[in-house]
Amino acid sequence: MIIPTYDDVLAAHERIAPHVHRTPVLTSSYLNALTGAELFFKCENFQKAGAFKARGASNAVFGLDDAQAANGVATHSSGNHGLSLAYAAGRRGIPVTVVMPRTAPEPKKDAVRGYGGQVVECEPSTSSREEVFARVVAESGAEFIHPYNDARVIAGQATCSRELLEQAEGLDAVIAPIGGGGMVSGTCLTLSNVAPGVEIYAAEPKNADDACRSFKAGHIIADDAPQTVADGLKVPLKELTWHFVSNHVTDIFTATEQEIIDAMRLIWQRMKIVMEPSSAVPLATILKNKDVFAGKRIGVIITGGNVDLGKLPWL
Amino acid sequence: MIIPTYDDVLAAHERIAPHVHRTPVLTSSYLNALTGAELFFKCENFQKAGAFKARGASNAVFGLDDAQAANGVATHSSGNHGLSLAYAAGRRGIPVTVVMPRTAPEPKKDAVRGYGGQVVECEPSTSSREEVFARVVAESGAEFIHPYNDARVIAGQATCSRELLEQAEGLDAVIAPIGGGGMVSGTCLTLSNVAPGVEIYAAEPKNADDACRSFKAGHIIADDAPQTVADGLKVPLKELTWHFVSNHVTDIFTATEQEIIDAMRLIWQRMKIVMEPSSAVPLATILKNKDVFAGKRIGVIITGGNVDLGKLPWL
Repeated sequence: MIIPTYDDVLAAHERIAPHVHRTPVLTSSYLNALTGAELFFKCENFQKAGAFKARGASNAVFGLDDAQAANGVATHSSGNHGLSLAYAAGRRGIPVTVVMPRTAPEPKKDAVRGYGGQVVECEPSTSSREEVFARVVAESGAEFIHPYNDARVIAGQATCSRELLEQAEGLDAVIAPIGGGGMVSGTCLTLSNVAPGVEIYAAEPKNADDACRSFKAGHIIADDAPQTVADGLKVPLKELTWHFVSNHVTDIFTATEQEIIDAMRLIWQRMKIVMEPSSAVPLATILKNKDVFAGKRIGVIITGGNVDLGKLPWL
Repeated sequence: MIIPTYDDVLAAHERIAPHVHRTPVLTSSYLNALTGAELFFKCENFQKAGAFKARGASNAVFGLDDAQAANGVATHSSGNHGLSLAYAAGRRGIPVTVVMPRTAPEPKKDAVRGYGGQVVECEPSTSSREEVFARVVAESGAEFIHPYNDARVIAGQATCSRELLEQAEGLDAVIAPIGGGGMVSGTCLTLSNVAPGVEIYAAEPKNADDACRSFKAGHIIADDAPQTVADGLKVPLKELTWHFVSNHVTDIFTATEQEIIDAMRLIWQRMKIVMEPSSAVPLATILKNKDVFAGKRIGVIITGGNVDLGKLPWL
């Protein structure tokens, strides 16, 4: 297991700078009043390809030597990592194949194809995805870029909280959604090195609370095919993200489907931004755990904005 | 008729600075490629009270002397001006009454009440609105702050394009939606004084194209109760906004309901921002008139973000 270092983060930030946005940090006096905290929303919904995943994917793709790159890259992804890998590979001009659940939102599949990527569909379960993916890699010889259990990807995601620390001074804590744990691991990597006093919280759908149960049990627990509106958060922790989560996370909170949908609508209504259900889980948990967050300066990572506008969860 | 000067704009900008946001300017490489132009979106959907109207309302409210202010303020508005006046009056701590069509979106009415304003409903026609409003003012003695036919309001709206000129250098043109003409008049006021070479376009729903017909006819034509999804743009020009429009606007373009809805959805999908149908009319007209805009640097004013998330026009 290769554990990325903070030097890898610095190298990643320089490598991906031409390919990703330094996304803005927004605030809302309404949501501050509602929570009693000062919230600083890092808006990765405005990121290239619509999600923070463009950071890790770009770092992985542009870090390949030419010989490796010639065979292309491949991944499995519930959506945003596949889209981001297609974006990054398209910028480098190399082939890319993405294995996606057939149930993933159509706009995400179309967007992968729009960047020139090939989509191969699997059933919506971890086991099916891994089986189909193994076949794809065996046939193409492509370099596997795992959505999160990959040092290059985590180093890329870690650039997000590096920017956040510069954009919002004096943070007491950062909170991010957790699925496979790539963003949370990147946050741990940066904060443990340059801001070790800042607490790190993860937020998870109650319907897919494997990270929370893993955290309490002290070892990885994986569910197959959990169902939640936060479709980016269905995947389990792996050994590399478990390393960061188990060593650096303060706590993991969960929210119900309705709490996630309510928080999502609240952010759309008040902040006038389009973001995914996954990105609403942190606010949903802050609203449920006001005693933990009130009076503090909290960085909140809005992880992505790729939502099917024809199927909004409150309608 | 009092015509505001650029000195009034400078005074307004200083007066309202503590009460409004300097909103960001966003760009989209996708929309640039689609239109062939370089578009700079001035995001007043992120403005206080959710629309540029907070500028004019704040200038009017904070410009009142204490004796005038004591009786409060009142207006009629299809939505955002009323909300913004309630916001500004709430910040100053004075009474405010807003006459609104009973058909206006419920969230807009609730938001006026949320700022402490009183809502009085009228029928959805210009004639009914003016009749009900006259009664309200006679009874309360409140200072009438017209939504757009008011020098104080236009000077406030003019601060928006003053910021835009600083945020996006070398603009060839600015385009804004036109209803009563307050934003367009403010744009004319600023640009004609400090950037007279920058062209000014207005964009209007075909279903409420009274400004376009007025512009061609050379005098004000007013429709009673036009129907359009762009509910902020139903009101007619008045003498003060006609002064600016007739003297400084290069052209007025129109878009159909479907073109407006398509442009709105495109902006939500690609820019990840929540904005109103009215704010989509400029992009809709740019897409129809590519020959006019291609190859140019265009400021596009996103006027507001107050939309009923339970009733999106493409669903």
